[in-house]
Amino acid sequence: MATEDAPGDTPKRKVTITAIAQEAGVSVPTVSRVVNGRSDVSAATRARVEELLRRHGYRRRPQAPGERASLLDLVFNDLDSPWAVEIIRGVEEVAHASGIGTVVSAIHNRAGSARQWMQNLRARASDGVILVTSVLEPNLHEELHRLGVPLVVVDPAGSPAFEVPTVGATNWAGGMAATEHLISLGHRRIGLIAGPPRLLCSRARLDGYRAALEAAGLPYDEKYVVPGDFHHASGFSGCNALLDLAEPPTALFASSDQMALGAIEALRRRGLRVPEDMSIVGFDDLPEVRWSAPPLTTVRQPLAEMGKAAARTVLRLAHGEEIDSLRVELATELVVRSSTASAEGAAGL
Amino acid sequence: MATEDAPGDTPKRKVTITAIAQEAGVSVPTVSRVVNGRSDVSAATRARVEELLRRHGYRRRPQAPGERASLLDLVFNDLDSPWAVEIIRGVEEVAHASGIGTVVSAIHNRAGSARQWMQNLRARASDGVILVTSVLEPNLHEELHRLGVPLVVVDPAGSPAFEVPTVGATNWAGGMAATEHLISLGHRRIGLIAGPPRLLCSRARLDGYRAALEAAGLPYDEKYVVPGDFHHASGFSGCNALLDLAEPPTALFASSDQMALGAIEALRRRGLRVPEDMSIVGFDDLPEVRWSAPPLTTVRQPLAEMGKAAARTVLRLAHGEEIDSLRVELATELVVRSSTASAEGAAGL
Repeated sequence: MATEDAPGDTPKRKVTITAIAQEAGVSVPTVSRVVNGRSDVSAATRARVEELLRRHGYRRRPQAPGERASLLDLVFNDLDSPWAVEIIRGVEEVAHASGIGTVVSAIHNRAGSARQWMQNLRARASDGVILVTSVLEPNLHEELHRLGVPLVVVDPAGSPAFEVPTVGATNWAGGMAATEHLISLGHRRIGLIAGPPRLLCSRARLDGYRAALEAAGLPYDEKYVVPGDFHHASGFSGCNALLDLAEPPTALFASSDQMALGAIEALRRRGLRVPEDMSIVGFDDLPEVRWSAPPLTTVRQPLAEMGKAAARTVLRLAHGEEIDSLRVELATELVVRSSTASAEGAAGL
Repeated sequence: MATEDAPGDTPKRKVTITAIAQEAGVSVPTVSRVVNGRSDVSAATRARVEELLRRHGYRRRPQAPGERASLLDLVFNDLDSPWAVEIIRGVEEVAHASGIGTVVSAIHNRAGSARQWMQNLRARASDGVILVTSVLEPNLHEELHRLGVPLVVVDPAGSPAFEVPTVGATNWAGGMAATEHLISLGHRRIGLIAGPPRLLCSRARLDGYRAALEAAGLPYDEKYVVPGDFHHASGFSGCNALLDLAEPPTALFASSDQMALGAIEALRRRGLRVPEDMSIVGFDDLPEVRWSAPPLTTVRQPLAEMGKAAARTVLRLAHGEEIDSLRVELATELVVRSSTASAEGAAGL
C-alpha cells in the first residue's frame, strides 16, 4: 500500500499514524512521540519512523515553537462543590473562545500538592493563573512572579501579598441586603451562620449583616451568630445550635446556599416548616436552589461572570496590556423565592 | 543593583523578570515571551533581553522540547451540572498525581465549538482525550485517530463508531435496584421519569425498571413512563403529568437526582408530602441530595471513580500500554434515605 511520493507531490493526508506504526513495527504512541518531538524514543526508532513519515508525506501538527497553544491554569483548593463548576464554566467560556485551554487543578490546601502543581505549571509553561479562594505559600507567589506568569485571585482569602488583581462579589452589600429583607418582613431576632473567618468574603457578609441590624436600630447579639465552613453539615449544626437557644431567632441568614440547605434539613427533622416557622436566606444562588424544598431566597453572586472577568484580566496581563482596576467586585443581588415570609407566624416558635 | 557575574558563578536566582524588564525598558510579558521562546518579539528586543538574562544569570524554565509537560483533555457538552464537577474531581486527581494537566472544555453540542476545540487540542498536543456523554462528529473522531491521540468515552451516548474504550456505570442494574426497592415497600403503581432516549444510560435505566416490574409480575404500563432530559424542570413537569393521571402512581423512579428534586418540588406545590404521599428514588447520588428535603433515596453511581478509571485508561493508552477491557462498567448501589416509605399511606392519594 505504501507508495513513494514524487518530490513536490501534495502530501497524502490519508496516511494514518496507525499505518506508519505497523510499517515501522512500533506502537502508535511511539510514532506519536516522534511526531510530537518527544525525547523518549531511541535514536534508531526515531530515524526509522521519521523516514516513513517523510516518505508518506505525513503532515505534522502545525506546531512551531512560537505557535504553541496557550494555556490558563485555574486552581481550586477542592473540587467538591457545585460552586466550582460555575467558576469553571465562566473561565472556560472566555478561554475556549480565545483558543486557550483551561487546566483545572485542586491543591487541597496541602503544600506538597501545591508544589507539585507549580512544577507541572512550569513544565507546561502556562500563560496565566487564576487562583480561587485559596492561599498560596509566599514562596510559590514569588516563583510565579519570578516566572512572569500573571496571577488573578477570585474571591481572595485575604489581602494578597503582592499587587495581585482580584475578582470578587459585593459581599458586604449582599449580607446587608439579605438582612434588610428579613427585617422588612418584620423579623427582629435574626440568626447568622457565618463563613470561615479567615476568608475576606465571610467577614464582609458578617459586617453587612451587622450594618443592616444597626441601621434598623436592632441590637447585634453575638449569641445569634454561629460559625460555619460553607458546607451543608455546618449549616445543619449551626441551625440546631440556634434552635436550642432560650429565645431562638425567627429568621436566619446562612452565608452560603449549602449551609442554608443544611439549616432547612435541621428544621425539617424537628418538624418545623420553612418559611412558616423560620425564614431562611442563603448566599450564592447555586442553580439547584431554585429546586430546593422550598425554593431558596438567596443572594446571587455571579460566579460564572466572576470566572469570565478573571479570565479576561489574566489574558490581558499575559498580553502585556494594562488592566483597568486591581480590585473588581461584581454586584450581588437578592433573589426572593419561597423560603422567607412575614415574621407573624414565626413569632410563636 | 545589576552586577556582572563572573563566568562560572552560581546563577543569581534572585533576579526577577520584573527587574530585567525595567532594565531593558520593556514590559514584563515581553521578557516572559523571550524566556519562553515565543516568536512574537522583535529581533532587537529579543537580543537586548537575552543579553540581560545572560548577564544576570537568569535561570530559564527547565523546558527542553522533549520535557514538555503532558496534558489531558476532558470534554463535556455543558458545564452546567454538579455532576460535571464529580467527574472533573476524579480525572484531576489521577492526572495531577502523574504531573499531568487536565484541560476542561465544553463544546455545547455545537459543531463549530467542537471544531474550535479540536484546533486547540492539536495546537497544545494533548496526550489524550476523555469525552463525557457527548458525541463527536465522525470526522473529529477520525482526526483524533489520525493524530494518534487516544480517546476514552465516559458514559457513552451510543455505541462508539471506532474501537473506543468506554467507562460507565451499571445503569441497568441500578434501574432494577431502584424499582425493586419501591416494589419491596409495597408499591404497585410506579412511575418512571426517563432520561433522553438517545443516551445508552437512559435506555439501560428504563430497561432495568421494566425488568424489575416483570420479575415481580407487575404490568409495564407506558402511561406511567414520562420523558425527561435529566434536568430539574423536566422532573417537575414529568411529575405533574403523572399526578394528573386518573390513577396516579404512589411511587416514582426519576432517572437523575436533578429530576427527582424537580418532582419533589411539583409535589410540594400541590401540598403533597414525600414520602408520605409519594415515594421518590433518584439516580446519581450527587453530594447535595443528602441535604435535600427530605434526604433522597437514590442509586449511587461512582462519578469520581468513573473519572479516575477513564484517566488511568487514557494514560495507559498514551504510554502505549495494553488495557484490560474496552468496556468498563463500575457498580451502582442503592442508597436508602428518607424519600421512600411503605405504600400504605400513599395508596390513598
